[in-house]
This record gives sequence, C-alpha cells and structure tokens, in this order.
Amino acid sequence: MLPKLNPGVRLDELAQCIQGHVHGDGDVLLTGVASLEQAEAGDLVFVTDSSLSSLARQSHASAFIISQAVEDESRPQLITPNPLYAFALLTQRYFLPSIARHGIADTVVKGHDVRIGPDTSIGAFVTLGDRVQLGARVTLYPGVVIGHDVVIGDDSILYPNVIVLDGCQIGARVIVQCGSVIGSDGFGYVEHQGRHQKIPQLGSVVIEDDVELGANVTVDRATFGFTTIKRGTKVDNQVQIAHNVHIGEDCILVAQVGIAGSTTVGHHVLIGGQAGLTDHLTIGDQAKIAAGSGVSRSVKAGKAVGGSMAFDYTSWLKVQALIQRLPEMRKEIQELKAKLADREATQ
Amino acid sequence: MLPKLNPGVRLDELAQCIQGHVHGDGDVLLTGVASLEQAEAGDLVFVTDSSLSSLARQSHASAFIISQAVEDESRPQLITPNPLYAFALLTQRYFLPSIARHGIADTVVKGHDVRIGPDTSIGAFVTLGDRVQLGARVTLYPGVVIGHDVVIGDDSILYPNVIVLDGCQIGARVIVQCGSVIGSDGFGYVEHQGRHQKIPQLGSVVIEDDVELGANVTVDRATFGFTTIKRGTKVDNQVQIAHNVHIGEDCILVAQVGIAGSTTVGHHVLIGGQAGLTDHLTIGDQAKIAAGSGVSRSVKAGKAVGGSMAFDYTSWLKVQALIQRLPEMRKEIQELKAKLADREATQ
Amino acid sequence: MLPKLNPGVRLDELAQCIQGHVHGDGDVLLTGVASLEQAEAGDLVFVTDSSLSSLARQSHASAFIISQAVEDESRPQLITPNPLYAFALLTQRYFLPSIARHGIADTVVKGHDVRIGPDTSIGAFVTLGDRVQLGARVTLYPGVVIGHDVVIGDDSILYPNVIVLDGCQIGARVIVQCGSVIGSDGFGYVEHQGRHQKIPQLGSVVIEDDVELGANVTVDRATFGFTTIKRGTKVDNQVQIAHNVHIGEDCILVAQVGIAGSTTVGHHVLIGGQAGLTDHLTIGDQAKIAAGSGVSRSVKAGKAVGGSMAFDYTSWLKVQALIQRLPEMRKEIQELKAKLADREATQ
Repeated sequence: MLPKLNPGVRLDELAQCIQGHVHGDGDVLLTGVASLEQAEAGDLVFVTDSSLSSLARQSHASAFIISQAVEDESRPQLITPNPLYAFALLTQRYFLPSIARHGIADTVVKGHDVRIGPDTSIGAFVTLGDRVQLGARVTLYPGVVIGHDVVIGDDSILYPNVIVLDGCQIGARVIVQCGSVIGSDGFGYVEHQGRHQKIPQLGSVVIEDDVELGANVTVDRATFGFTTIKRGTKVDNQVQIAHNVHIGEDCILVAQVGIAGSTTVGHHVLIGGQAGLTDHLTIGDQAKIAAGSGVSRSVKAGKAVGGSMAFDYTSWLKVQALIQRLPEMRKEIQELKAKLADREATQ
Repeated sequence: MLPKLNPGVRLDELAQCIQGHVHGDGDVLLTGVASLEQAEAGDLVFVTDSSLSSLARQSHASAFIISQAVEDESRPQLITPNPLYAFALLTQRYFLPSIARHGIADTVVKGHDVRIGPDTSIGAFVTLGDRVQLGARVTLYPGVVIGHDVVIGDDSILYPNVIVLDGCQIGARVIVQCGSVIGSDGFGYVEHQGRHQKIPQLGSVVIEDDVELGANVTVDRATFGFTTIKRGTKVDNQVQIAHNVHIGEDCILVAQVGIAGSTTVGHHVLIGGQAGLTDHLTIGDQAKIAAGSGVSRSVKAGKAVGGSMAFDYTSWLKVQALIQRLPEMRKEIQELKAKLADREATQ
Repeated sequence: MLPKLNPGVRLDELAQCIQGHVHGDGDVLLTGVASLEQAEAGDLVFVTDSSLSSLARQSHASAFIISQAVEDESRPQLITPNPLYAFALLTQRYFLPSIARHGIADTVVKGHDVRIGPDTSIGAFVTLGDRVQLGARVTLYPGVVIGHDVVIGDDSILYPNVIVLDGCQIGARVIVQCGSVIGSDGFGYVEHQGRHQKIPQLGSVVIEDDVELGANVTVDRATFGFTTIKRGTKVDNQVQIAHNVHIGEDCILVAQVGIAGSTTVGHHVLIGGQAGLTDHLTIGDQAKIAAGSGVSRSVKAGKAVGGSMAFDYTSWLKVQALIQRLPEMRKEIQELKAKLADREATQ
C-alpha cells in the first residue's frame, strides 16, 4: 500500500534513531514496512515474541525488529526492548509519506483577523471563523468548519468534516478523525411548568497537546469554564464527552464510551468500549473500567471495576461466573427445602 | 468568555422581566453573567441553595439570583422561586450576543423554487434542494445540507454539517447541533433466498417546535408516514431514533440512547444515557428509564424501570445490591448442604 | 409523498415482473404504493397475513399483494409467497422516482487522474482526491469527501457528508447513509514510558457489493491489510467497526453495535442493537447475538447468545428471569438457615 523508499534507509541508521543495536548486517537497505504475512524483500517487520515463529521465518522480510537476538536466523535483526514501539517510531519517521502541503485551497472561506502559521495545508470548502489562529504545519482536510476565536496548535491534523466551534482551543500535534464535533452545547435544561428551558452553555473546550480523537466523537462545551482533555489522552470513535468533564493525561477511552456531565477522570485511566459513566463522579488515576460497564459511583485511584454497577473487578468476575449458575443455585435451594420438609414430616 | 454589556442592565429591569423582586439595591448595573468561581465585578450569578455558601460569599459577583433573601449579605439579590430558570431566561435575553445575521453566503447552492424568510443567516457551502422553505430568522451554519421539499420553521438553528433529507419538516425554534442527520433511510430489509432486499423507506420525519437535537444524532425516516419528535423534547448527542418511532412532548433523551423501530414514547418521559429500547414498545407518559437499561417490554405511564431487562426500578435496585452478594449466597447454600449431610450422617 | 405514476402500470405487468399471478382483474392500473392506512385509489399495498384484516378491507387501495387469494374480496390480488419482498422489488422498480442525474456540479473539486463513469451524479462541494475511480451511475450527494486512490463501483450511492479516506474500496450497489466515515485510523497505540505512541495504520477498508451502511457509522482502516465488510451485509446507524475486523456476507448489524479490533464475523450473523464484541473473537456463521449483549468469547456457528457475558441464549433467558427473584432466593436461604439453627437449638 505504502510507496517504497528509494533507495531506502540503512538498518544501522534505523538502529541509531531508536538507540537499538543491530545483530547481523547493518548495511542492509530497508525500503518499506509490512506485516509478517505481507512482507516483501526490502521490508522491515516487527516481532513481538522474543522467538521467531514459523510465520516470521517464512516471511519475505529483509530485517526484523525484535527484543532478543535469535541466533539461527541469518537475516539482520534490530534489537530493542519494545519492538512495536520502535516499529511505530521508525514507520512514522522514515516510511510514512509526509502529508502533502498544498497551502490554502481557493475555496476556503475565512473570517477577519485570521492568523495562519507557515506550511499549513487547508483543503477545499473549509470555513474559518473570525480571529482563528492556526499554528505551523496545521492540516485541515476538506469540509472542516472552524468557529470564531478558535486556536489550533502546531502540527495538528483535522480530518474531513471535523467541526470546532467558537472559542475552543486545540493544542499541538492533536489528531481529530473525521466527523468529530468539538464544542457543541452541553445538555443542560431547567424545568419550568413542565417544559425544559435551555441553560445557555457559556464555556468552551480545551484539548491539550498530543490528544487524538477518533471519528464521530462529540465533546460538549462547558456550561461555564472548560471541558478539558489533557495531554496525551487517546479517544476512540463515537465517544461522547459531556459538558464540564475533565479527563486527565494519557488516558485511553475505547469506542462508544459515554461520560456524563462534570465527571472528572484522572490520568492513565483506561475505559473499555461502550462503558458509561454517570455525572459528577471522580475516577482516580490509573483506574481501569471494563468494557460495557455502567459506572454510577466514583472509583478510587488504581482500582479496576466492571459490571453494570461497576463494583470491584475481581468480585465482578466471580459474579459473572455465578450468574450463569443461578438456575442451578435455585434448584439447590429447592432441594434443601424439600429435604428439610421431608425430615420434619418423618421425625 | 462572553463580551460584557456596555453600559449594562439594571437589576430592577431584570427582576421585572422574570417577575421577581429585588432585595437590596435595584439600580446596580449588571454587565455579564458567570459562575460563582469566575464572577467579576458587574456579573450576575445564580445560587441554587436558599443559603449562601462560602463559595458564594467569596465570589466577586455584583448580584445574586436566589430563592430566598439572605439578610446578612449586603450585595443585592434577585428573589425568584427557580433561580436557575431565571438565570437561563435572563442570560438568553440580555447577555448572549445575538447571532450575527450575514444573510446568504456567496457560496450557497440553491435548487429551484426555494423560499427564504427574512433575516435568515446561511453560511458557506450550504446546499438547499428544490422547493425548500425557510422561515424567518433561520440560521444555517456552514456545510449544512438540506434536501428537496424540506420546511424549516422560524428561528430554528442548524449547526455545521447538519443534514436534513428530502421531505422532512422542522418546526420553529428547533436547535440541531453539529453533524446530526434527519431523514436517513430506516433500517428495513426483507429476506429472500438468504439475501436482504431493501424495503424502500417512503415516509419522512417531523420535528416539532422547540425540540433540540444534540450532535451526531440520527433520526431515520419512516417506512410509510412519519417518524415524529413532538414539541419541546430534548435529545442529547449520539442518540439513534429509528423509523416510525414517535416521541411525545417534553421528553429528555440522554446521550447514546437507541430506540428501535415503531416504538412510541409518551410525553415527559426521561430516558437515561445509553439506554436501549427494542421495537414496537409503548412507553407511557412520564415514565423514567434508568441509564444503561435494556428495555424489551412496554412500560406503563409513570413507572420507573431499570436494568438489563428493565424491570421495576425498586426491584432492580435490590437485585443490583444482591448481585454483588451472589458469591456469598452460593457459599451459604453449600454450607447448608454440608450441615444437612453431616447431620444425616451422624443421626 | 411519492409522485404518482401517470398513466400507471397494469397489475398483470407487475405480476409478471415478480413471477406472481393475479386473482381478479389484471388490467387495473396502479399509480402508486402506500400503507394500508394511507392508500388511495390507484395504490398497490401489501398484506403480510394470508387473510385480510379489517384494516385491509377498509383500505382505499386498488390492489393487494398477498400470499393466498382471499375469495370474498372483489379487488384484484397479486399472489406471491413473500408479499413484502414483492412489494419491495416492485416499489424499487416501478414506483420510486429514479435519482435525478445532474452530472457533475460546478463546485466539485477534483484531484488529478480522476476517472468518472457514465451517468454519475456528483453534488455540490464534493471533493475527489487523486486517482479516484467512480463506476457508472454512481451518486455522490453534497459534501461527500473522497480521498486519494479510492475506487467506487457501479450504482453506489453516498449520501451527504459521507467520507471515504485514501485507498479504500467500495463495491457496486453500495449505499452509505449520511455522515458515515470509511477509513479513519484504527485505534492502535503502544505504551512507552507511560505515554501512548500511535501505531501507524497502514491498511485500508474493503466494502463489497450490495452492502448498506447507515448514518454516522465508522469503519476504521486496518493496521496492515484490510478491514472488510462482505457482500450483502447491512449495517444500521452509529455502528462502530474497528481495524482489521472482518464481517462476512449477508449479516445484519443493528444500530449502535461496536466491534473491537481483529474480530471476525461469519456470514448471515445477526447482531442486535447496542451489542458490543471485544477484540480478536470469532463469531461463527449464522450466529445470533441478542441486543445489548457484551460478547467477550468467541461464538460457534449457529449459536444464539445474549447477556452481559453473552453466554448461551436459553440459559440467559432463564438467568434473566431468575435475577428478578434474587431477593426471594436470598430470603429462602435465610429461612433455611434459621430453620436449621432452630432445630439444632431444640434437639
């Protein structure tokens, strides 16, 4: 799929880049990356085990990234403690084609006092509101809509049809996949005589550096102040983040998670797919929430929770196992009752 | 965040607008609204308790909206039974900048026989199909796509990239947040020799006055007739409403709810986040469905249900509590069995 | 809603098209289709029962499609084993207005080496990347964004704001409803010193012939190779399909389903709404997964599963019934204990 490098890069250079070392011929020229199955001559592949599977041995790859040298393999090996990490870095740096910079398309509509950094790429039919500030090397794909007073940091990439509404702030190296919405109104109403009066949503959204949002994600603006997603957090497709939610650094939110208003999530929290968190909770640092959980109580730092009331993960696993035996348990209770009745009758 | 009013509005005038009364100096000029924490001199804030918390007392606000006068506070207070409601109304009327009306952008593409009311604002790259009718003061943000024969009532606001397909009708004062889709085909197929033949979806969608839809919501058109959302209902982000669903007045549907085909929901129904309703159900007026529920049976008017089979809410709470004790229950049963066996052996 | 045919089509001709036969007057001219309730003179309707309900008898329809002739009805009947299937086919062929072909709108932006088949219709503000290939009679609605090297087969329809990113392949007669995203990056990171490094997603997506995707669906590109959806599978709104997922032929995925990375789904699998499947599972052919299930284990061909751990469907139904009796079970156990204690005390 990827175009091949020509003439390619020496394995020694790759090793230097990631501070690994080469076992075998460091002069081999690598022209691409691939999976074990699809590798061709010239390709670099990574191996997650410390041994070489038969799949790896049969691969046509020209070099391996691996955590320990395998002696009986004649092809060169790049030794590094975390081969997948090295692979990701090297692919990003050497093998991915850099994004073509076409400047600003003719069909871009701009408000007044817009500031655009150097080497940006702004696609067709993009709308930029008044006083928008784009950093250096920002990429906006076709159909992106940016509201007034939005700030976007250096090297950020917004894929087609992403929307960032008025006053929201996006850091550097942020990636937002297609169709995501940042800064829609929070869902706030006050009841009056049986009708719901909209509470104006006066705040905005801050997305810090190195965050990635998946496709069709929604992040609501705060009622007052900010909804925040801190540095390095990664959010999968179709996640919903309500107003005044705060998400700490380096979290992972898997697809279709929903987080209700004013809930605060610590750093390095892992939230499995389709989990739902109710409002005004505090999820401690490094907590883990199992996929599909319904969390309606705060979770302490470091705890792992799961299940529809999201209690302790270990108990939950036991309960999940036992739920399947409920019919059997019921039968046992009935047998016990019968036995007792029987003995009482015969005594 | 909001621009300040200049010179500001007198507290007496605000009180008159909401039929409240002023405790203290009614001549104070208010220039903005804020939260307690962020308030500056000139700001009006609301207090939900009838007492003033220390947070409120430390606030730099110039006036409070509160339900009962607090005597030992020297700053003026606007007394009204529902302070949040009053705050919402006053913010909307006095403090929110009115939407700038730029008329019709050069890049709008229109079909034939389009009728556009006065004081509308149509952003860049909007597409209007044939015979579209837009009421007065309608706002269409950039990238909105409107199909043929769509009618949109006065004062409605469609945020960027909202899509309303052929023949759908939108009432007055409707708000649709970014990326939502109204009138996509219902999910209907008939099996024939192991393949799924699409059933044409010939109906459309009616959204009544004062409805709000969140971001990335989907509302499918009916197979025949209409999918309807009645007056005043508020729908949060990423909700899915299938074909031929009917939703009554003044309901609240929290984020990521899914409602399957032909289900009818009464008025003033509350559906918690991520709840799912199967098809052809009837949910009675003022019913409440807990977040995360899976509802596969109809629910009577006024009932509160929850849980994965959505049974009675009170039973569900008990069950949820007991589920955590299943391992303990199992142990108890085994002890009982052992005791009985033991006694039988020794008798 | 639909325009009427003028002069209409003879019932005999319709019968011939679907190889049915006519009971009664085959010369009647049909000018439209409708539901029983809404039918007017000239309309053809379908009846799913083999008898005519009072609703059907009161209908103003001019002819019925039905599986068995009803003798005491004077209006003509078109007899066919699967009336809904016949209705779907006839509606598609005779009564739906064909999509107007307007050619390529002035505002379309094209890359280089784009190939566009005959009789295509490309709406306003569509962007086509380099080397895009569109088959014959392809319809792209306004706001569609097509990346580089995308191939789209004959007669496919992409509704407004659909996005297909670089290198993805779409078959013939594929329908994609509004706002869906094909080819967003898979959610892959590798942890290094507490931070998440993005793993480049180098693969793409293949959507085969006759697939339909609902609105706001997301389908991620593979890390290597392809994410695939095979011929004839139908996917409802807001479904999330992760990287390297493979879905077989003729499946049905109801709204808001989420399928995690590398899971393989067989053919004719039915997945109910809001169900979630974890990663690296194998779901056998013709399996059925109940709505709302959380599936974390592979499922054998032909099996029906349900529940939060998605165990066997029959056990699950039993468990669901018993869960409601947990409070009662607990009481029984306590009574048993008391009885035993009592007897021990009195012996």
